[in-house]
Order: sequence, then structure tokens, then C-alpha cells
Amino acid sequence: MLGPKFPWLLWAYTCCCSTVFCGRVVVWPTDASHWINMKVLLQELVLRGHEVTVLVPSSNLLINYQDTSSPFTFEVLQVPFSQETLDAAMEDFLNFWMNKASNLFPWEIMWTMKEQLEVFTNMSKQTCDTLVMNSHLIAKLQHAKFDVLIADPLSVGGELVAEILEIPFVYSFRFSDGNVVERRCGGLLSPPSYVPASTMGLTHQMSFMERLQNFLFYIFTDLFFMKFWRDEWDGYYSNVLGRPTTLCETMGKAEIWLIRTYWDFEFPRPFLPNFEFVGGLHCQPAKPLPKEMEEFVQSSGEHGVIIFTLGSMVHSLSDEKSNVIAKALSQLPQKVLWRYKGKKPETLGSNTRIFDWIPQNDLLGHPLTKAFITHGGTNGLYEAIYHGIPMVGIPMFADQHDNLVHMVAKGAAVQVDFNTMKTQDLVDALNTVIYNSTYKENALKLSKIQHDQPVKPLDRAVFWIEFVMRHKGAKHLRPAAHHLTWYQYHSLDVLAFLFTCTATIVFILFKCCLCCCRRCGRIAKRKKE
Amino acid sequence: MLGPKFPWLLWAYTCCCSTVFCGRVVVWPTDASHWINMKVLLQELVLRGHEVTVLVPSSNLLINYQDTSSPFTFEVLQVPFSQETLDAAMEDFLNFWMNKASNLFPWEIMWTMKEQLEVFTNMSKQTCDTLVMNSHLIAKLQHAKFDVLIADPLSVGGELVAEILEIPFVYSFRFSDGNVVERRCGGLLSPPSYVPASTMGLTHQMSFMERLQNFLFYIFTDLFFMKFWRDEWDGYYSNVLGRPTTLCETMGKAEIWLIRTYWDFEFPRPFLPNFEFVGGLHCQPAKPLPKEMEEFVQSSGEHGVIIFTLGSMVHSLSDEKSNVIAKALSQLPQKVLWRYKGKKPETLGSNTRIFDWIPQNDLLGHPLTKAFITHGGTNGLYEAIYHGIPMVGIPMFADQHDNLVHMVAKGAAVQVDFNTMKTQDLVDALNTVIYNSTYKENALKLSKIQHDQPVKPLDRAVFWIEFVMRHKGAKHLRPAAHHLTWYQYHSLDVLAFLFTCTATIVFILFKCCLCCCRRCGRIAKRKKE
Repeated sequence: MLGPKFPWLLWAYTCCCSTVFCGRVVVWPTDASHWINMKVLLQELVLRGHEVTVLVPSSNLLINYQDTSSPFTFEVLQVPFSQETLDAAMEDFLNFWMNKASNLFPWEIMWTMKEQLEVFTNMSKQTCDTLVMNSHLIAKLQHAKFDVLIADPLSVGGELVAEILEIPFVYSFRFSDGNVVERRCGGLLSPPSYVPASTMGLTHQMSFMERLQNFLFYIFTDLFFMKFWRDEWDGYYSNVLGRPTTLCETMGKAEIWLIRTYWDFEFPRPFLPNFEFVGGLHCQPAKPLPKEMEEFVQSSGEHGVIIFTLGSMVHSLSDEKSNVIAKALSQLPQKVLWRYKGKKPETLGSNTRIFDWIPQNDLLGHPLTKAFITHGGTNGLYEAIYHGIPMVGIPMFADQHDNLVHMVAKGAAVQVDFNTMKTQDLVDALNTVIYNSTYKENALKLSKIQHDQPVKPLDRAVFWIEFVMRHKGAKHLRPAAHHLTWYQYHSLDVLAFLFTCTATIVFILFKCCLCCCRRCGRIAKRKKE
Repeated sequence: MLGPKFPWLLWAYTCCCSTVFCGRVVVWPTDASHWINMKVLLQELVLRGHEVTVLVPSSNLLINYQDTSSPFTFEVLQVPFSQETLDAAMEDFLNFWMNKASNLFPWEIMWTMKEQLEVFTNMSKQTCDTLVMNSHLIAKLQHAKFDVLIADPLSVGGELVAEILEIPFVYSFRFSDGNVVERRCGGLLSPPSYVPASTMGLTHQMSFMERLQNFLFYIFTDLFFMKFWRDEWDGYYSNVLGRPTTLCETMGKAEIWLIRTYWDFEFPRPFLPNFEFVGGLHCQPAKPLPKEMEEFVQSSGEHGVIIFTLGSMVHSLSDEKSNVIAKALSQLPQKVLWRYKGKKPETLGSNTRIFDWIPQNDLLGHPLTKAFITHGGTNGLYEAIYHGIPMVGIPMFADQHDNLVHMVAKGAAVQVDFNTMKTQDLVDALNTVIYNSTYKENALKLSKIQHDQPVKPLDRAVFWIEFVMRHKGAKHLRPAAHHLTWYQYHSLDVLAFLFTCTATIVFILFKCCLCCCRRCGRIAKRKKE
């Protein structure tokens, strides 16, 4: 089950295993764009001779476990929810954010977010159940003697499986709302004065009101998630492990946190030695385009081309929206390559060609590419950064607004509101990033930062996974903060002690003074008498 | 003036400069063991084709600017204090810590420390004066068009020269008391609950009393140094630069902080993206020993050898102390190589040989070496870590106590008190680290961590200096914390606002309730009437 399955891997396997450590890696699944990124990391691990087994739910979005050419071994978890149920939940989620959220009050949005979170949490729990209640499967996995587990904290359960198998685990992670997982479970310090909370859409340079918002959002996410996890997960984890524990405590045992951003994207912030920023690990030099596509790109002449995609999850738009976009694109002198599976818009110009799928990285790396219209997913943004392409962002949900705020702050993007966007808005945005040279210059600056690293992000990610396998963990990088209570961590007991001492001394001094004054008063009175 | 001066460098120079960026590096001097470490970094820069100019005071401890074989260009600063004055100040300093400090009360020690600090600060200021008051030299340096300045914050002045020359600067740094420079000027977050202050001799796992001490020491160093810098340096910097500034603000402009430790030595702690931990950059595989020394080492047979040195600054000991040590060493079955320039002790055993100088790194890397007796200087400790040799520490001053606390906490060393040490104490300590295998195992664990890095420390240090030269800085790594006032940084204005809002709301609610109660009371009274 666990050996590399295909002859083309034999060379890598034999070559690597003969000289260095070859490990057994088990992966707790993460889906959608997270899987696209993790797959690149896992493929690299296989290329370096490691055996990779992916635990995969029978119903999922993007993990094709029936692909016989995959270099991974799949262990299918037969989940009780059907593919249709999952697709419908995802459809509801997208529909809400693309068509409904903009007309609702903030508390209505938050209520729906909570409901959506409960739906996906329920599925996560059912996925966990298929493993923790299957003693045969646990025995099989234990017998396989894995060296490390890789998981994404967004997809809860990986840390629990690592505990059951008694192996170290490594996280590949993009973000959590308000960085609550990184802060509360990973021990990451995030001063609210200059570290903007994820999804708040703020930069590192905040006005007083923005710092106030940021501060309150940190507190809100702390209170919300600590309660949500307590209600949903803490009991579950304690039951399975047979001892009182919490989700957060278990997550905090991660040996290494591979964060899928880097300092070209992030605002500089404090971090810990077991956090490694490996953003852009999936990027690579552009490969030649398919012949027909190359001909279309070349036909753009000096004007160049624009690449347009709304990511792996959004396949179609409303007629109204698609026509607004198509009309805007038709007014440009550039040729446009649009990844779109919906109905062909009536206003589609002759300069725009629609594709079911595009080789996004290769197109962004093409010398004729002038701009990238993106929903703001991290994978796409990083390909644009890697190739130095300015962006027009049309964010819709999750971290997309926040991601584009980063790119706008760094001067490499213009943002357009998906809900209120008019044809001219998109035309203006594209003309700005294409003809105002500062956007290209800033995109190239970010590209230089991305390329100018002592070790490539993919190599660093692989290094730390291999390190954990070689040393059975990375405990020397784990801060002692994990052993402190919240009041010890914030030195509140020390402050309380100092306050008590000071108050006692002041009180004693006050009483002494009072006593002296009274005595002096009495003596003076007696003398007077 | 600025070209590589020697033929043996021509190959490296031509080779590197033909393909990659070749820069001009100017160095603000740091002395004693700090210079020993920095020299390795500068030699590597020269090997990679960069031109290195070292500004050097005419009176100094270890920088031999008359060495014609040096690969650096020296620009001598004619300081007004003589070599004798400097040597005497250093002698006083050592004498105080080795012979007097242990008999004094803490406040007497602190008072003397302040006096010593003033003596060395005065010399630093005189060194700065020789440059900032020499417009000809400034013009010469400006004309040389340096790409980067390298300095050590311990040797104040480098950041000022960088500002005058309008070039970016990089720090090579070990520590400051209570990490005050790193925290207050570099923006490094150091929660007192699990980050022990430098020189406090604490670990990352502290009892309540230790956390209290740590907390108070942070506050003490903050108050002491902010006042000291204000009195001594802030006016000086403002005068020279012709605008109101402070030493700390100027230090905070460092592009990169190369910290001379790594996670084998440090306890895990939060840090910033412009901090790079390059401890052990000077370590390298052992080279063969001189023939006579190798014969002596081999003569130890299965017992092996012990290496003993008290560092580059301590050349001799009192007769009493040297006899205590020599007697202890004479009772061991191992052969001992002792670096010592003092009077030969009467109790010196036949197994101990005294040397003026030893190839420390090569001896520590010798397969027959069993233990290292050290004063606890970082350079020596890192050589022991690199080669996996357990240690007996006899700390005396500066960071030596603190360094050895790290090594003891990591299980690779035993500490002996220099002032109270008896012969049997040293014998017991050596027998412990040699015959209790856990010390060797722990030393080897640290060695593995030191060796198992994605990029070697020296290469990382060079990379970031070259990065700063290529990109004219590393502003993308600089946290926005530098732009905040202290109350904004700690969100005190936000807290005050929230407190005021809450208090106002509570007050209004209270008044409303009171009003309602009174009205209800009146109605009830009227009804009663």
C-alpha cells in the first residue's frame, strides 16, 4: 500500500532513499484551493522519495482519488454525506456570498456565517468519525508506522489523528479569522496596534478607528471561536483521546506551521521559530502554452493580453454580471483569456476568448501578459507576484477581500466591488494597472522579493517536514508559552502581586503619616492647653 | 583604497564579480570576541568578491590594522585615548568581575557597572568624534559610495555613520542587558512570562518568583538605559544629524539584525522577519592539529583530552585560583590542553600542558576530545555545540553566566562558581560531563540542530547583507511598530477609549435606573397618600 506506485518514481525513490532519510507521510485532507496548494508540496515529497498516503473523504470537492496516475496512495474514508449534499452546501455558500450578503445587515451576515460554519463542522465531524470509530483502519494506519502527519488547521481532525497515531504533525496553513488559531493555539503574538487581523481588510498602518476595530475584532474572534470550539470540538477530542483536552491544545502541538504567505504579501509581524512562511511554493517558471492559445496570445501584438479567472470554485456568474464584465473587456485593446464555464455573455467582444480551463501560471509568466483579473485567492495572487503581473481584484468571500487589501497597499493592484461594479469601473481599473507604470513596477518589486530568498519556499517547506521526520519532531522550536495559563502568559499574576505590594506599602505609609499627624496634633494641643 | 589588495583574492573577486553583484562594505568596529566573530563574516564577504573597509580606532584590543596580510582595507581613526588607557580600563573591568564583584552588595556592583559603562561610553564618543568632526574623512567615505555598513549595536556609532553616509546598515549582534536594545529599538516582542531577559540567568520555564524578577529586570533596564542614552547619546546624535532624534530611533533603522545565536542555544521566542539567527557562523570542520599537539592528544589513549580556555580576554589568574584548577586537572586520567599566559601553577600535573594559544575549533572537533572547560563566551560555546562536546562552565562576567544557564538547561553543561570553586568541585564537574552519558548525548543533540539547517548560518548572514546591497535595504521586513508611539503600540489609547465609553454607558444606565426608581417611588408614595 505504501510504496511509490509508479515506475517513473522509481528513480527518485531509489536515488533519494539510498543516500538520505525516506519517510512515510500521512495527510489529513484539506479541500478546494487548499488542496491545490498542498498537492504541490506532497508531489515534491514523493519526488524526494517519501511515501505519501492521503486520507480522503469519499465525497469531496477537488481530491480525485480515482486518478490512477496520482503519485499518492489514497485511503478512502466512507463518509455518510453524499457528493450532492456537499456540492449543495458549497453552492449555498457561494450563492450567499456572491448574491445575498451585500444586501444584508452585518448581524445577518454573521448569523449566516455561523450557520455555514456549523454545516461544514458537521461534515468534518462525520469525516473524523469514519476514522476514529474504525479500529481496523486505525490499526492499519498504526501498522504503517508513519513518520509525520500533514494537515491544514482549517480542516479540523488532522491533529487528532496524529495524537491517535502518536506521530508528530506539521501544519500547512493560510489563515484563520482574526488569526485566532495562530494566536490562541499556535502562540503567535499579534499586537493589535500594527498586526491587522485576517479578514478585517486592514493594513499594518492603521488610524485610531482602524486600530479600535482591529482590537475589537481580535476580542470578538477570541470569544466566538473559543465558545464554538468548546461547544463543538473540545468534548469530541476529549472523548476520543480519553483524557480532558481541547481542540486548541491539540492544535498547539503542531511541530511546524508552514504558512502559505511570505513577506512580499504579508505585512511584517512578529512570529515564532516554528512558523515558516512558504508563500508561493507552488509557483514555477512558465512553460510553453498550447499552440492555439499561444497563437491567440501572439495575435494581441503590442497591447498584450489580460488573464481573467475567478478561481477554482466559481464556475459561472449571473447573466447581468457576466455581461457587465464581458462588455468592459470588449472595450479594451488587449486580448483577454477568460476561464469561465457559465453561459456565454451576449456582450462578449471579439478580443475575449473563453476557456474551460487555462494554464494560469504559464499565462501569467508569458511576456505579453499585462494584467490579471482575479478573485483574490492566495494561489493566483502568488502566481501574479511570482511573475510580476499587476492585478485587478474582484473579491467575493473568505480571505479574498483581505488578500487584495494587501496587494492594493503594496501598490500592485486595484480593487473593484463585485456587487456594485459597472462596466466603466472595470475598464478604468484595467487601464490603471496597465498604463500607470507604478503598478507594474510594484508588482516587479514583489516579484524580486519572492525570487530573492536564501532557499525557495517549496524547498523550505520540504526541509522542515523532513526535519520533523528525521528528529521525530522539532521541540527545540516550541515556545514555553504553551505551558502557561492565560494569566501567567500575560503576567497578570505578577502585575496583581506588584499592585498588591504597592497598595499595601502606600496604605501602611498613609496610616503611619496619619498616626504621626494625629500624635503631632495631640502634642501641639497639649502644649497649647 | 577599496579594491581587494591581494593576489589570492583575485580569483574570487573576478569570479564573483563577473556573474553577481559585487558590493562595497564599510564596517564600524566592534572589539574583543565580537570582532573575532565579525571577522569571519567579513572574510567571507571578501571571498565572495565584496570590498570591505574597516574603520578602526588607533587604540583597540584585537583589531590588528597593521597586519599586511589582512584582506580588509583599514581606515584608522586617530582616537585621543592611548593603548595603555584602553588596556588599563579593560584590566580594571576584568579585575572587578574576577576578584571584587563577589564580595560586594548588588547596589555596589550596579554602581560600578554604571561607572564602567561611562568609561567605555566616553571612549566610544571619542571614537565617533574622530569621524563626525573630520569632514575630509566623511567626504572620502561618501565618495567611496559604500552599499552597506555593518556594525554591532554594542559599539555605538555605526548607525550614526550610516545615517551620515546615507546608506543602509546591518547589525551583527549578540545581546544587550535585558534585551533593551532589541526590544526598545529593534521592536522585538519579549513577553516577560517566557522570554528570559539577557544576563538574568533564567530559563524559559520560570517559577512565579523568577517571572517576577524577569518582569522587574525588563522595567529596570528600560528605565536605566532610556535615561542613560538620553543623557549620553540622544543630544549627540541630534547635534551631528542636525535634527531631533535619539540613539534608539537611529538604531531602529537597521535593515537586518544578524543575531549571533540559534535555536540550539536560544530558548524559542517571538522574533521579527528582519531578525536572522546566525549563531555558529564561525564554526567549521576541524583541521589537523600541529604535529606536536596531535602527539600529545594521541598520548591520552582511551581517556581522551580536555580543552580548557577562559577566552581571548583573560590571560592569567591569581596564584591561588590557578593552583586550585591545576590540582583538579592533575587528578584526572585525561590529558588537558590549557590555554594560559599566566605564571605556571605549582600544582600543575604531568597530564596538563599549557599553551599560549590553541586551535580551539580544531581541538574541539578532535575525536579524542571529551570535555571543554570554558568561561562561557558565545564563540567558544558554539564551537562546542558544533562539535557536540559537553562543557564545564566557569563564567566570570558579561553574558557568560547567562550563556551557561542556557547550556545547563539544555543538559550539555555543568556550571562551577569561579569565586567559591574548590579543587573537588572542578573534578566532580568534569567527571559528571565525561562519565554521565546524558551530557554527551545532549551536546550531540544540539550539534545535530546546529548542523541540520536549510542554509548554513554564515551563508544566511552573507545572503542578507548582499540582499540589503542589491535592494538598497530590506524595508519590506520592517514592522510598522516603529511608526507608533509607546501608548499606540500597547493600544493604551484604544483601551482608554473603550474604558471611557463603558464608564459613560454604565453611568448613564445607572442614572436612568436611579431616575426610574425615584419616579416609581414617587408614584407609589402618591398612591399611598
